Amino acid sequence: MKNYIQFLNKAFDNRIRLGIMSVLVVNDWVDFKALKEMLDLTDGNLASHITALEKEGYVQVKKKFIGKKPNTSYGVTRDGKKAFEEHLNALENLIKKRN
Amino acid sequence: MKNYIQFLNKAFDNRIRLGIMSVLVVNDWVDFKALKEMLDLTDGNLASHITALEKEGYVQVKKKFIGKKPNTSYGVTRDGKKAFEEHLNALENLIKKRN
Repeated sequence: MKNYIQFLNKAFDNRIRLGIMSVLVVNDWVDFKALKEMLDLTDGNLASHITALEKEGYVQVKKKFIGKKPNTSYGVTRDGKKAFEEHLNALENLIKKRN
Repeated sequence: MKNYIQFLNKAFDNRIRLGIMSVLVVNDWVDFKALKEMLDLTDGNLASHITALEKEGYVQVKKKFIGKKPNTSYGVTRDGKKAFEEHLNALENLIKKRN
């Protein structure tokens, strides 16, 4: 039991972060607006959680212009993918344990 | 995607709360000391999260004396069991989705 809590990643405690990561591990690059709509979040809410994941080194940012409009998109890093897989495995162990 | 975040329960965002609930759903009554040791937590940390779960109506408290020593033990409520099952199902859906 001790072990399983240790393997859960504090950075993914929040369900919005779980949502962001689960979108980004299956999509190469997702822009802010699309991510916001997929997860049904406000700008501020998405921004704060994505910044937290960026600080952890789990999410990377790409800024470009589409015509004159700035466009920001997000992708998962290799570390992020690994950390998320480990977190989901720990959760999977928890779910199995109860059966 | 939208749905799956909605089905995750904010009360269980924290991994310590996941740990507490996962112990309590498989054990009838667990006293403070045993719970603390099983989860490798400090007194303050366990107390604050158990209080949060109690306020949600997910955990119930039983106080008694063993000889002259007060003993506090915790159990999951019917609501808590249901809410936790729903949360784990939502997590399970997330885990399945990535495969």
